[in-house]
This record gives sequence, structure tokens and C-alpha cells, in this order.
Amino acid sequence: MKALIVFAHPEPDSFNGRMKSVAVETLAAMGHEAAVCDLYAEGFDPLEGPKHFPQRAAVERFNAQTEQHYAATHSAVSADVRAMIEKLDWAELLILQYPMWWYSVPAILKGWLDRVLVYGSIYTTEMRYDKGRFRGRRAMLSVTCGGPQGSYAENGRNGDVNLFIWPTNYTLYYVGYTVLPPFLAFGVMPPAAAAQEPQAKAHLTATEERYRQHLRTLDARSPLDFNKWGDWDSSGRFKPDVEIHNAFSRFAKAGHG
Amino acid sequence: MKALIVFAHPEPDSFNGRMKSVAVETLAAMGHEAAVCDLYAEGFDPLEGPKHFPQRAAVERFNAQTEQHYAATHSAVSADVRAMIEKLDWAELLILQYPMWWYSVPAILKGWLDRVLVYGSIYTTEMRYDKGRFRGRRAMLSVTCGGPQGSYAENGRNGDVNLFIWPTNYTLYYVGYTVLPPFLAFGVMPPAAAAQEPQAKAHLTATEERYRQHLRTLDARSPLDFNKWGDWDSSGRFKPDVEIHNAFSRFAKAGHG
Repeated sequence: MKALIVFAHPEPDSFNGRMKSVAVETLAAMGHEAAVCDLYAEGFDPLEGPKHFPQRAAVERFNAQTEQHYAATHSAVSADVRAMIEKLDWAELLILQYPMWWYSVPAILKGWLDRVLVYGSIYTTEMRYDKGRFRGRRAMLSVTCGGPQGSYAENGRNGDVNLFIWPTNYTLYYVGYTVLPPFLAFGVMPPAAAAQEPQAKAHLTATEERYRQHLRTLDARSPLDFNKWGDWDSSGRFKPDVEIHNAFSRFAKAGHG
Repeated sequence: MKALIVFAHPEPDSFNGRMKSVAVETLAAMGHEAAVCDLYAEGFDPLEGPKHFPQRAAVERFNAQTEQHYAATHSAVSADVRAMIEKLDWAELLILQYPMWWYSVPAILKGWLDRVLVYGSIYTTEMRYDKGRFRGRRAMLSVTCGGPQGSYAENGRNGDVNLFIWPTNYTLYYVGYTVLPPFLAFGVMPPAAAAQEPQAKAHLTATEERYRQHLRTLDARSPLDFNKWGDWDSSGRFKPDVEIHNAFSRFAKAGHG
């Protein structure tokens, strides 16, 4: 299997960097090929905008979808995005490794989604969800959270962590991926703070080992359930009596609300 | 009242740009002062990282919180972030105007959160939530969505749109803001697509008018409910029988899960 790890942290020697290396080592030991895309080190530009589109569909005003579609259909996608798409086409497993910053992905990873998932190439109105370009490939989030696990529980002050990663998971499904359950690391403190906590090092070591186990047992894990084209009507509403599969599906039933 | 509109779209002449202008005009007509921070036009750098911290707490490896805290306590916050914080200190109302890209904020706005909400200055372990720095000030999201409203309903294929904006709303509350109900615009298509839909122009004009009404009646709108310090224990879990107020609170009860 070919695996691509997209790494979104400014410090290679961070715990996120360690997790990236754990994935490379573990997957290699399993006989897989693992490649890393280090967004900070590669200087990836996260800002979608006119500068990436020297050939324009509409010069008078910039619209991202319009220009992405034009570039995709006129062999004019920028070189950095094309290189990323080639890597995605190569990979049978995609891992996004990042720290949760403000309950979401860091800006560099958000910009990677904004720019690389090109309208007209990676998705179209017809090529989405279970008909998405990357169908048959798997993707997985590996996320570190500074806060304690309890605060990210359903009855924690932040609420269920699955709701914070749902936008990214649903994005992966949108472009066709089979989305595996995330690996979540909690209580990942800055080095200075961790140094003052005697149990912090042991906690991080145990987290690394838990990640190794997670990776070794990927094939045994059921992917997340998502609804399919046939489940909704033309306005995007679920048909009556469809079972809803999303981050909050245990609360929701089609036909209500 | 002093209002700051943080505008996160690459095209001034977009519908988002129009919404920004509608806010400026409407607030001015109400006798308020309105200022705009145009992140793309100002060339805001969204990437948190070592380059913004010439004076380092720890040179051997970069940790964002560690360096933010050091900069905040050593008068070494970068000039662009300091200028942003001055604007936030000036504003009694903060509006974030952005298009929903991949179920989240555009990278430039994510990076604005990542960099401007400085640990040690804008928040500390003790200065958060209802004890946050911006307590007494109001904030509001104004978001455009390309998809139809039905797809963002609780029984729509994307699920309740409030779950997608919850990370940003909760971030605003985290730093102390009183968060007003968002203004949400659905079915905002690219200009080329809209030109082919006879009703698209009328829809956008009606959306603008709905936004004017939203702004004129801000004072009558109840802010979002959030839980307070006293509602959770030291691990961040809600105390038994606390009523949970968050984006999915109508589904949740403390003590369960």
C-alpha cells in the first residue's frame, strides 16, 4: 500500500512531527510505502486567490470556483497544486497529521484543502460523495488536542470532538474517500509545560504506542458511515425514513427538524 | 458604537464584498462607526510559525503557545498582530465576513484566528470564556454558503449549518465575546453560474436586504447561550444536571454520554 502523510505543523521536532515519523516507521515496517508532504517545510501557499490563475476565465472579478474550473479544463492548474494532486493520485491511504488549533485545522492545512481540492478536477457537481474522484482510497485524520480528553467529551465543555473534525472528515468524503476513524491524541501540552508534569512524558510515549496499534489495525477498522446520493432529494434534504450517518447522527432522524 | 468588519475574501467585488459594504453602510446610517479590515488586501500572513518570533522563549524547537506567551509578556508581539489587537480593542462589535469554504473559514481567516488570538495576551488559562478579555463586546459571523439552504438543514445532506460555524463561534466566546446569532446567506453562486439563473439576482438582492434588517435589529437579538466556568469541573466535564448550551445542546444533556 502507498500512504501519503500530509504534515501541517511548523516544527519538525514537535509531538506532531513525532506522530508523522511514527506513521512512516510503522507503515514501512508493515511493508507499505510511506511518503510525507511537509506543508511548512515545502512553503505551501495556503491562500486561494488571483495570483494562482494567470489565465483567467473572468478577469473582471475573481471567483475561486470559476477560476479553478477554468484552470482544470484548460491545463492551467498551478504547478504546486498539480504536484499535490499527483501525490494524492499516488496514495491509497491519506493521513492528515495536524494539531487542533481553535477547534479546527491550522491555516496551512485549511489552505491546502481550499487550493488542492480543485473544482472541475477533484470534484464536480456530478463527481462527489460516493461518486467522488478518490473513491476506493482511504483517508484518516490524526489530530493532537492540548486539552484534556474529558473536555472534548459529549458532556465536556468543548463538546464532542467528533463535531470539530466533522467538517474535515466530510470534506474527505466529499471528494470520494473512504474515511477511517480518526486517531485523536489528547492532553498534548507544549514542551515547557510538559516538562513540569512528571506524567507528561509517559503519556506521550503511551500515545505514540497507541498510534502504532491504531495503524497496525487499520484494516480491521470500520470506516465512518456517510449517506449516499440516493439518500437525498434535489434540494439536498434527506428523503423520509433515511437513516442519517454523520457526526451527530446518533441524535438525528430524517424527517425531523 | 464602534464596529470592525474583518473581511476574508480575495475579491472586493464579490457578493461577500457587497455584504461587507452593506454592513458599513447600514451601521453608518444607524450612527455607528464602522471600520473594515480586508485581510487579502492588507496581505495578512496566515501562517503561525517561527518567523514571527525573532525573540524566542525556546530556540531549539518552536511551539506556538510557548512563543506567543513569551512574546506577549516581553512586548515582542509582531507588529501586524499588534495592529490587529488594537483594532479589536477599539471595536465594540466584531463581524467576521467570509464565504464558507470546505465547511469552514477560508485559510486567511483561520490564520487570523491562529495568529491574532495570542496566548498570554488575548487569553490565558484564567482569562477565558465568561472571564475572557473581550467580555462585554459583541461578535457575529456573516457567512455565505454556495449550497441550497435545505442541504444545510438538520435533515440535509450537510447537516445543521450551525455545527460548521460552531468552532468559530466557540472561539469567539473563548476569548470572551458575547456572540450574536450569525447571518447566513445560502445559495450564493459564482457570478457565471448566477448569470444563468434568472432568479439568482433577485435572491442576492433579497439576501442583502435581509442582512440590512438583521443589522438594524441586532440589539433585539438574544446572544447565543454558552456555559460558564462554574458549569464544569477541573477536567472540563459538565457537572451533573447542568443545562448544556452549545450548537448541539438540543440533543445533549449533562450527565449522559
